[in-house]
Amino acid sequence: MTVGIVVLGTGRIGKMHAELIARQVPGAQLAGVFDVTDSAAELGAELACPVATSLDDALAIEADAVAICTSTDTHVDAMVAAAGAGRAIFCEKPLSLDLAQVDRGLAAVEAAGVSLQIGFNRRFDPSHKAVADAVAHRAVGDVHLCNITSRDPGPPPISYIEGSGGIFCDMTIHDFDMARYVTRSEIVEVYATGAVRVDPAIGEAGDIDTAVVVLTHENGAITTIDNSRKAVYGYDQRVEVFGSEGMASSGNFHDFNARIATSGGFTAPPLQHFFIERYTRSYLDQWKAFVEVVRDDAPSPVTGADGRAPLLVGLAAWKSLREGRPVQCAEIA
Amino acid sequence: MTVGIVVLGTGRIGKMHAELIARQVPGAQLAGVFDVTDSAAELGAELACPVATSLDDALAIEADAVAICTSTDTHVDAMVAAAGAGRAIFCEKPLSLDLAQVDRGLAAVEAAGVSLQIGFNRRFDPSHKAVADAVAHRAVGDVHLCNITSRDPGPPPISYIEGSGGIFCDMTIHDFDMARYVTRSEIVEVYATGAVRVDPAIGEAGDIDTAVVVLTHENGAITTIDNSRKAVYGYDQRVEVFGSEGMASSGNFHDFNARIATSGGFTAPPLQHFFIERYTRSYLDQWKAFVEVVRDDAPSPVTGADGRAPLLVGLAAWKSLREGRPVQCAEIA
Amino acid sequence: MTVGIVVLGTGRIGKMHAELIARQVPGAQLAGVFDVTDSAAELGAELACPVATSLDDALAIEADAVAICTSTDTHVDAMVAAAGAGRAIFCEKPLSLDLAQVDRGLAAVEAAGVSLQIGFNRRFDPSHKAVADAVAHRAVGDVHLCNITSRDPGPPPISYIEGSGGIFCDMTIHDFDMARYVTRSEIVEVYATGAVRVDPAIGEAGDIDTAVVVLTHENGAITTIDNSRKAVYGYDQRVEVFGSEGMASSGNFHDFNARIATSGGFTAPPLQHFFIERYTRSYLDQWKAFVEVVRDDAPSPVTGADGRAPLLVGLAAWKSLREGRPVQCAEIA
Amino acid sequence: MTVGIVVLGTGRIGKMHAELIARQVPGAQLAGVFDVTDSAAELGAELACPVATSLDDALAIEADAVAICTSTDTHVDAMVAAAGAGRAIFCEKPLSLDLAQVDRGLAAVEAAGVSLQIGFNRRFDPSHKAVADAVAHRAVGDVHLCNITSRDPGPPPISYIEGSGGIFCDMTIHDFDMARYVTRSEIVEVYATGAVRVDPAIGEAGDIDTAVVVLTHENGAITTIDNSRKAVYGYDQRVEVFGSEGMASSGNFHDFNARIATSGGFTAPPLQHFFIERYTRSYLDQWKAFVEVVRDDAPSPVTGADGRAPLLVGLAAWKSLREGRPVQCAEIA
Repeated sequence: MTVGIVVLGTGRIGKMHAELIARQVPGAQLAGVFDVTDSAAELGAELACPVATSLDDALAIEADAVAICTSTDTHVDAMVAAAGAGRAIFCEKPLSLDLAQVDRGLAAVEAAGVSLQIGFNRRFDPSHKAVADAVAHRAVGDVHLCNITSRDPGPPPISYIEGSGGIFCDMTIHDFDMARYVTRSEIVEVYATGAVRVDPAIGEAGDIDTAVVVLTHENGAITTIDNSRKAVYGYDQRVEVFGSEGMASSGNFHDFNARIATSGGFTAPPLQHFFIERYTRSYLDQWKAFVEVVRDDAPSPVTGADGRAPLLVGLAAWKSLREGRPVQCAEIA
Repeated sequence: MTVGIVVLGTGRIGKMHAELIARQVPGAQLAGVFDVTDSAAELGAELACPVATSLDDALAIEADAVAICTSTDTHVDAMVAAAGAGRAIFCEKPLSLDLAQVDRGLAAVEAAGVSLQIGFNRRFDPSHKAVADAVAHRAVGDVHLCNITSRDPGPPPISYIEGSGGIFCDMTIHDFDMARYVTRSEIVEVYATGAVRVDPAIGEAGDIDTAVVVLTHENGAITTIDNSRKAVYGYDQRVEVFGSEGMASSGNFHDFNARIATSGGFTAPPLQHFFIERYTRSYLDQWKAFVEVVRDDAPSPVTGADGRAPLLVGLAAWKSLREGRPVQCAEIA
Repeated sequence: MTVGIVVLGTGRIGKMHAELIARQVPGAQLAGVFDVTDSAAELGAELACPVATSLDDALAIEADAVAICTSTDTHVDAMVAAAGAGRAIFCEKPLSLDLAQVDRGLAAVEAAGVSLQIGFNRRFDPSHKAVADAVAHRAVGDVHLCNITSRDPGPPPISYIEGSGGIFCDMTIHDFDMARYVTRSEIVEVYATGAVRVDPAIGEAGDIDTAVVVLTHENGAITTIDNSRKAVYGYDQRVEVFGSEGMASSGNFHDFNARIATSGGFTAPPLQHFFIERYTRSYLDQWKAFVEVVRDDAPSPVTGADGRAPLLVGLAAWKSLREGRPVQCAEIA
Repeated sequence: MTVGIVVLGTGRIGKMHAELIARQVPGAQLAGVFDVTDSAAELGAELACPVATSLDDALAIEADAVAICTSTDTHVDAMVAAAGAGRAIFCEKPLSLDLAQVDRGLAAVEAAGVSLQIGFNRRFDPSHKAVADAVAHRAVGDVHLCNITSRDPGPPPISYIEGSGGIFCDMTIHDFDMARYVTRSEIVEVYATGAVRVDPAIGEAGDIDTAVVVLTHENGAITTIDNSRKAVYGYDQRVEVFGSEGMASSGNFHDFNARIATSGGFTAPPLQHFFIERYTRSYLDQWKAFVEVVRDDAPSPVTGADGRAPLLVGLAAWKSLREGRPVQCAEIA
């Protein structure tokens, strides 16, 4: 069986997913594309697949699944509609910026009994996955500490930031997911601090661009996260889990591997530039997993609950930042 | 202008080139594919391009260029025919195993005045290229020594080895090209030694699987090369140039970047498995360069002379191994 | 001029200092040793220097300076006495666990006009120093973030912990100093969390063994510190400063530099075991600096104020941990 | 029992050995020093030990062993005399530049039944030792290839070169020993090439400063060695053994461990400068082993045969270079 997938939303990330599905995912077929802009028509021509001009049309295409890559505020409506149409669902993060909306979407999915996988692709990065696997196999013993460094090479446009939910719900949400993924324990408390250091316009948009978050997990582990919207030396993505028996860590690749040594020392190239270079393999493996979910009825590797939890942490982080104190997750929702 | 390219030969490497041209090379178009086997028809269907069933038919397809990816013994005939048809030519290495044939092919190319680029893709690997660039910019001063380690993860089938020209003309030929490329100096003397250590069947086929070669360059630099057909820890590709002012080196990437630290020490994953993983970017950049050669009449980055020289060194290496002495390149043809 | 130094206190650290002064510090001479135990007599015999059996006797030895390496609770009294005797003073950290005592000692030093250098040796580690220098030369631009990882290979005896001032005043105090040193900015706010994860007996002694601290600096930089009393893979000491123009980081050395690669991957040895291996060079350079302070009247590289500030931060950290909220340094003392 | 050792020869290396023995080697005692220059008197004063003004006087000092650190041309005479006096012997490399002399010395040692350990200290470097151990434990399977890079930071004085036996008997001799040590197999054939690239005065002294040597071992392994008298980026010492089941390698340490990352890439410091920094631990461990040889009658870790073999290879290398062909070791002696 080949899994037919309709991609909803053909912006930057949707286009990438459509191309991967069309060309590189064994067992998957691009059944159609939809967008409210002209981008869908262009992409459909390039990838030789049907093009839908409305969500209804998109759900009328015969297919096994949809990939929801539209703007965040439309995720839940699309999820509810797709669930109603009996489609298995892949949904980009965040599910929504509103927990009540998230709950509405998850309820529809559950009622329809369709599969759901959330787009936390970093879980499929082989480096980070090796850290999670090491913890799962108890190579580091009991987890005591987890450090996550996550720095983008440059900030997104201010227009993007305005609807993003701010750094904690847009960018750090990946790190909240990572913290749960690698420590294998829920987050119970959040302390967040931060500042505007990269671009004053980000502050004017009500957001920050530099952040530090401390998480306390149910099992007593403590996670630190540091974020910046601008690391001039490349995309910096590191995870480290420390425990009673050792440490597991994942790191970056340099853009290429060359060294020049002179009397002054050694030089090496910057890091890989951004997520396209760094996380290609994670996106591909994410889709391979989704094919198994739909085709083989395998359990979802990133469930609806995995989509909800880091959003709640993100909201708690904003509350912590505003109130200047650690916030219990139980205070939210 | 888009450069139309017909791929001649759709075995493993030809198929890879055709897919790159069709999908990932800006300014290039896959104008057709040809093979003496059914593989061309399959690939043509996948990539939606004309399929030729003879070389003549392939050259009848309207196109700017051909990519010669057929078996080594047919390279020169295809080159002569393509030159006669006025096509720009990309040709895989080695040009031939016979210097006289190489000269016949290069004469035809020169007579026709068409462009020619040889498939020494490793020159386009950004890590090795950084070494060559550092030497070119005199970051290491005068070149004194060059060390090349080149080890495959596993040997090819014996049937392949039989028509390959042996390790020096099939595998080490890349390293001879690399030595010329990074030191920027012709090779004048060759001392080769080696043995059958990986698989006795390789010896029975008249070849060796483990080799060490010492090259003396015109400018006095000395290059060492070591080869093995089987490195169990992955594809090992390293180049190092040492000179009066420093050293430039290129190395490998691990398959992914994770470390596990326990009381016993640290562990890391094996290297990237083979050339598909390691040299993808070099293949892509090779095609980008070829587009410029054809479209912009740019000088070829890997000329016919660059194709001929390492073959001659390979033949000298075989002579050195047989006779147990250093051989002058001037002794060959 | 040779700087004669009397070492007060010949426990583990005092003995090390005495040996360095006697044998490896150009321009320094071990003028005598003093301890309340027999250890001074043994050491004096080994290093062929006078042995004092009381502080008064020790200060009666003709010398330029004293090195106060006695137990923490005797530091200030020794400092006051030494200042009164006109000796230049090197004093181990922490100066005291009581700010009022610290102020008494610093006042005596100032009144006497003698030089004072505090034993924050890590400032002299060439790796950490390179980070501080990079920041000073603005190689990383404005400082946004600083991450410090500081993990001991194993906990000290419980008896030691009891008089130590707890993890924040004993162990993290080095990191508070490091944060001030590399960011070049005072600490204004402290948020601390932590737990007993290594050994319950540490908890019973009123201390914790696993800690995370977030510092806010006057210039807006945010520092994270993570500590553990037990890293099974060796002594883990890393500092990273991130800013608008880049990042500077210092790291560890493996115990030796060997790699074994097999089909399962690569292995490397554990880190250097503890401070004797890791920080030898810092101790030596610390003494070279002290010789310049005494002999050349150079400014102290680690002043009394540098000794006081991290103690105050340590006290603030304890307050933060107890009260579960960020604490302003201005709330202390 | 404490092993009393008289150091014969107090030049650079003898002085270092005397200081190590006097201060850092458990179970050893510096029983005296001897030199034909005033350096012995100075050193004896510093280390508080008897000073001999003739070899006879030195051998009259009550001691268990001597360390022969005099000039190469006096090694054998000192060895014969020390053996006659019943002393255990540590002797610096090379034993002599003349095989007949070596044999005379070894015969005297054997006749006297005293212990002998040769100063190939690099065997005690923990990084290189880990490579040798990995091979011994068959972690890399059958040995196919061995690569040794050995580059000094700068050439010695011409006066030193003149009596040194040339690069192959002075510098490469360490690498010949290393090749035997890590591959665990005798060398049967040598091919050497080289040039004067660093300093013409070295050529005028009849030596070369840049060399490549290929060794064939009895077990079929092939070793490459590359040498330079001047690596501007520091002392470069690397060993790599490749076999059927993997690879073991040892490398260098940077002078310190710091990285600066900017938009242009990463920088790191040069390597440790020279043997004092790099091989300190090997010297210490060499002495610890010698104490066991003398005190416990343990087998010598570096025997007279281990001293003779690399000298023979060095002489074969000179013959190969002169005659431009591979030379069998059996042709020498």
